[in-house]
Amino acid sequence: MATTSVPENIDTDVLRSLLDGRWAHIRQMARQSLRGELFAPVHGLTVEEHRERVARQLREIAATEVPRLGFSTAHGGAEDVGGSVVAFEMLVCDLSLMVKVGVQWGLFGGAIQALGTERHHAAYLPAVMSLELPGCFAMTETGHGSDVQRLRTTATYDPATEEFVVHTPDPTARKDYIGNAARDGRVAVVFAQLVTAGERHGVHALLVPIRDEQGRPMPGVRIEDCGHKAGLNGVDNGRLEFDRVRVPRTALLDRYGRVAADGGYSSPIDNPRRRFFTMLGTLVRGRVSVAGGAGSAAKAALAIAVRHAESRRQFTRPGSAEEVRLLDYLAHQRRLLPALATTYALHFAQEELVGRLHDASVGEPTSERERRELESQAAGLKAVATWHASATIQACREACGGAGYLSENRLAQLRADTDVFTTFEGANTVLLQLVAKGLLTHYRDEFGSLDTLGTVRLLTGRFFEAVIERTAARTLVDRLVEAAPGRDEEADLYDRGWQYRLLEDRERHVLEGLARRLRRAGREGEDAFEVFNNAQDHVLRAARVHVERTVLEAFIAGVDRCADPDVRNLLERVCDLYALSTIEADRAWFLEHGRLTPARSKAVTAAVNALCGSLRPHARALVDGFGLEQEWLAAPIAGGPGEGTAVGAAVS
Amino acid sequence: MATTSVPENIDTDVLRSLLDGRWAHIRQMARQSLRGELFAPVHGLTVEEHRERVARQLREIAATEVPRLGFSTAHGGAEDVGGSVVAFEMLVCDLSLMVKVGVQWGLFGGAIQALGTERHHAAYLPAVMSLELPGCFAMTETGHGSDVQRLRTTATYDPATEEFVVHTPDPTARKDYIGNAARDGRVAVVFAQLVTAGERHGVHALLVPIRDEQGRPMPGVRIEDCGHKAGLNGVDNGRLEFDRVRVPRTALLDRYGRVAADGGYSSPIDNPRRRFFTMLGTLVRGRVSVAGGAGSAAKAALAIAVRHAESRRQFTRPGSAEEVRLLDYLAHQRRLLPALATTYALHFAQEELVGRLHDASVGEPTSERERRELESQAAGLKAVATWHASATIQACREACGGAGYLSENRLAQLRADTDVFTTFEGANTVLLQLVAKGLLTHYRDEFGSLDTLGTVRLLTGRFFEAVIERTAARTLVDRLVEAAPGRDEEADLYDRGWQYRLLEDRERHVLEGLARRLRRAGREGEDAFEVFNNAQDHVLRAARVHVERTVLEAFIAGVDRCADPDVRNLLERVCDLYALSTIEADRAWFLEHGRLTPARSKAVTAAVNALCGSLRPHARALVDGFGLEQEWLAAPIAGGPGEGTAVGAAVS
Repeated sequence: MATTSVPENIDTDVLRSLLDGRWAHIRQMARQSLRGELFAPVHGLTVEEHRERVARQLREIAATEVPRLGFSTAHGGAEDVGGSVVAFEMLVCDLSLMVKVGVQWGLFGGAIQALGTERHHAAYLPAVMSLELPGCFAMTETGHGSDVQRLRTTATYDPATEEFVVHTPDPTARKDYIGNAARDGRVAVVFAQLVTAGERHGVHALLVPIRDEQGRPMPGVRIEDCGHKAGLNGVDNGRLEFDRVRVPRTALLDRYGRVAADGGYSSPIDNPRRRFFTMLGTLVRGRVSVAGGAGSAAKAALAIAVRHAESRRQFTRPGSAEEVRLLDYLAHQRRLLPALATTYALHFAQEELVGRLHDASVGEPTSERERRELESQAAGLKAVATWHASATIQACREACGGAGYLSENRLAQLRADTDVFTTFEGANTVLLQLVAKGLLTHYRDEFGSLDTLGTVRLLTGRFFEAVIERTAARTLVDRLVEAAPGRDEEADLYDRGWQYRLLEDRERHVLEGLARRLRRAGREGEDAFEVFNNAQDHVLRAARVHVERTVLEAFIAGVDRCADPDVRNLLERVCDLYALSTIEADRAWFLEHGRLTPARSKAVTAAVNALCGSLRPHARALVDGFGLEQEWLAAPIAGGPGEGTAVGAAVS
Repeated sequence: MATTSVPENIDTDVLRSLLDGRWAHIRQMARQSLRGELFAPVHGLTVEEHRERVARQLREIAATEVPRLGFSTAHGGAEDVGGSVVAFEMLVCDLSLMVKVGVQWGLFGGAIQALGTERHHAAYLPAVMSLELPGCFAMTETGHGSDVQRLRTTATYDPATEEFVVHTPDPTARKDYIGNAARDGRVAVVFAQLVTAGERHGVHALLVPIRDEQGRPMPGVRIEDCGHKAGLNGVDNGRLEFDRVRVPRTALLDRYGRVAADGGYSSPIDNPRRRFFTMLGTLVRGRVSVAGGAGSAAKAALAIAVRHAESRRQFTRPGSAEEVRLLDYLAHQRRLLPALATTYALHFAQEELVGRLHDASVGEPTSERERRELESQAAGLKAVATWHASATIQACREACGGAGYLSENRLAQLRADTDVFTTFEGANTVLLQLVAKGLLTHYRDEFGSLDTLGTVRLLTGRFFEAVIERTAARTLVDRLVEAAPGRDEEADLYDRGWQYRLLEDRERHVLEGLARRLRRAGREGEDAFEVFNNAQDHVLRAARVHVERTVLEAFIAGVDRCADPDVRNLLERVCDLYALSTIEADRAWFLEHGRLTPARSKAVTAAVNALCGSLRPHARALVDGFGLEQEWLAAPIAGGPGEGTAVGAAVS
């Protein structure tokens, strides 16, 4: 039905329960336990005070169920990977704590779990969970972040002593931006080029002690503090340099590569590229977690900005002394409500991704192709969700004016803390290129991740047809698409099948066009780098439109799970706003490719405006549905302390 | 000629000299004097340390020519308003210092100069210039920022004692976010509703002492600290509340409104609305300054990011061991180079605006219409330049990856400091609406600034035709437009006349469409607020496209001033990139309105890519042309201390 109307009364408990989803119990636990002075958001601390506070919070969390979630039951874990990701994303009271939890139990502990073998698990996991052993994940170097294959730290095996010699050959090989390194970490999982018997075997990970029990750097280890950062100053990022540091042979996390006492190398995966990407693939949980954390920060910012926009008034209506609430202005709605709709869409996409990650980690071993799809989905959502969070929190800050600039209102900190989310756990631009390569190769290439040349060569020989996989709500989406009118101009703008088909058609067209472009250039013998580089904007677009389509699919599936007719009706309108504002943002493409007529394109803009107006009365219910505790928001403009004096004032 | 080629050798001195423009001597003075430890950018200070440092810097500047620039020669000033704005924008070493300078000599001193009379000038200006008298500009209140007419602080005249009673009637009337209030200010220019003999005369400004010589709050004055902010923590923002504070009758800055000893009110401007907007209009200098400051911050960020992108390498070319410089990637060029081109365009627009402001303040009295045009130009450029700075610094941060997140590399601070520029000195959304109203009324309405109802009513009665005034390079632009082919499809994309005509035509169409829409609704008797609000996106668009057109005009005029053929040729390409990336960003509109065919729209995107490629070798020269001192950039990744070790490292 062509309508933007929504029901009047929304039960926010129903809404919250739907959003809480499969790991509702973890969310509830977080709401009950992250309370009181220790977990209250604070601001204006010095770096040292902030680090100390986060360390205290971390110790408190170490005593709960949370650290166990991500580890195998054999060593005291709860083997609830989905729960561990959800627990991470709930730490919105201070994103420094969120990241510190991620470093200790996600990256550091996760690497031992995923890359180590039984010996490492038994020896380390209990102390990792209890926080007796705080650690680091030392992958990035000053000279190489995105290009992990070219890391320069070396681990050279010495059969005489049965030790590895870990070494930083030059300053670009220094480990950089390493969380937990500047203050707390005692051991680091160090990624290094493994060398044995004069032969290089590519990047492997080793456990290297960096501090003794008294916190002094170990001999040969140089530790530097990265110092003050734009945000996340509760996390002690540092730099590590190794001067021929010796560790025993058992320090190698050897699930994917072993070195025998005599220096002989063996691996269950013969092909070195495949081995490398298999090892990297185990890090997928980190990316899923970051996408979730970005989502939480966007939700918190929207909750603050919407509450403020509902109470704050500015300028009178003509002919009236009554001042207008900010959220009644179209420009204000435009700033906040499409961002709110997209936050909902990403929430459902995240929920689905966490479920897939969880099922892949606890059930039957998955195929390599399935693993690659999951990695690709995680990479794409991480990129889109973190950019969305940056833009949304920024819009919220501006929508709160000068009040938004004061630290007491939290937006400044949320903005600064999340800013690096677009960079760490894989720079977004690099991640989107991985997604595009996966789509171009149908996840079928030999090694898990072709390089540029390989991708161009692979495409050169073959006919390419885009495969659009409907995964989240396959049957439902099939039905919706089939029910949509065949001719686009006849379809109602609010027809979900039409909206979906438009995004699906765009994905296919962009991808096939890209494949043709690369194949043609490849055939004509052009330089592979130039070919790929000249198409880089096309490559990024292919990934982005793919993610946007899959996010809509997840939103459709999420709405379909809602049994309450009023809430469902509301969510249908929110889904309309996501779909139509996504189409609007890219309407130039739809016009250029004859997918929208000019008149219909203008109608899309009008529909977005209309939806903003009809969702405006429900903005508060929609942010309440996120279920963020009032004390986590902690902003006077969002109803925290101080609000009463400023708003409920009598007129003299 | 349809070309994207540029000459090989660029003389950056010539480029810098062109950019330095009319106030080159001020820029040179800044380069020579803002040096050494005292003016070195720092980070990670506590709020108190930062405030103390900025106060020391301010005292140093008080001893220079800078404070005198903005004041009349009669009281020791230099009466060089343009110079004062340029001096402000050069303070890029610490934007807290920039803002503090702006508060003391621009807002506080400027208000005394513009709103006071001879008595105030003689009594206060020397002490303002010397910094003996630090002061505040207390306009914004907790409850009213954008809507200055509805401020709630009162100044009630008591003829018995010949005093004004300044009072804060309720907490929403508290003066908020006031720079210089929390720590240093001794006097505030307080904007309040003037009441005498029981009659209200609207908002006027009075000098109110807030601290004694020992820094203690004056009786009846309550001062609160706004505390930690997202940025600008070297500026001591505070809140002021007045409990029936008495000041003498002479405290009223009475250029536009006088109160006689008996309480009789008189003003040279009878109409209260016109009086109000005349008073507000004197604040135009602040907006021009903020636009300039935003430009400087964007330039500094680009200088850092371009230098980094020229030296940093990541990933190898296929079949080669050589790693690729970041700036060779199309996606990286896309991030930085259109932003660089727009920064150039805005520089020339700013240069022209400063010139107009200067000439209006030192020459013959200008007409009310000219003043309104200047105010509108300042409002529009302030909005566009500050949003551009936010987006550009953000892009630079992301383009520098993890290094961009470290405070030592300055981008974090530049981003955080400038964030509030979009809000203060007029929230951008409000400013753009002022611009649109000016365009709709041809600056001819009676009162200087019609309200919503007035605008709708004014339009209802009349036929509206958009007037596109070519001001910056009238003859030249006329010639270019005439020389462009009559049929758009025949025009070369690089034809400046065609580019300009496209922007001009868009401006006319958007504005006339908006006028028709408002008139129609007005005739049909719809609610004026609803009519205007439903068109708010259209209103904002009208202002934006107007500014974009005038900025292109200024860029064309700037290039025309360049005598060096190579530099001129380079700037022509930069101007192409500004024009075409501006068209590209809004190509949906051009497609929707039949101004671009789909094929031509795609060609615009291809041209932007091609221009990025051809300008890439000159990116360094273009940022060097800004003439920012190396020590102001102070980022290790931009060649500061530390760069050598990380980049020039030997391979072991």
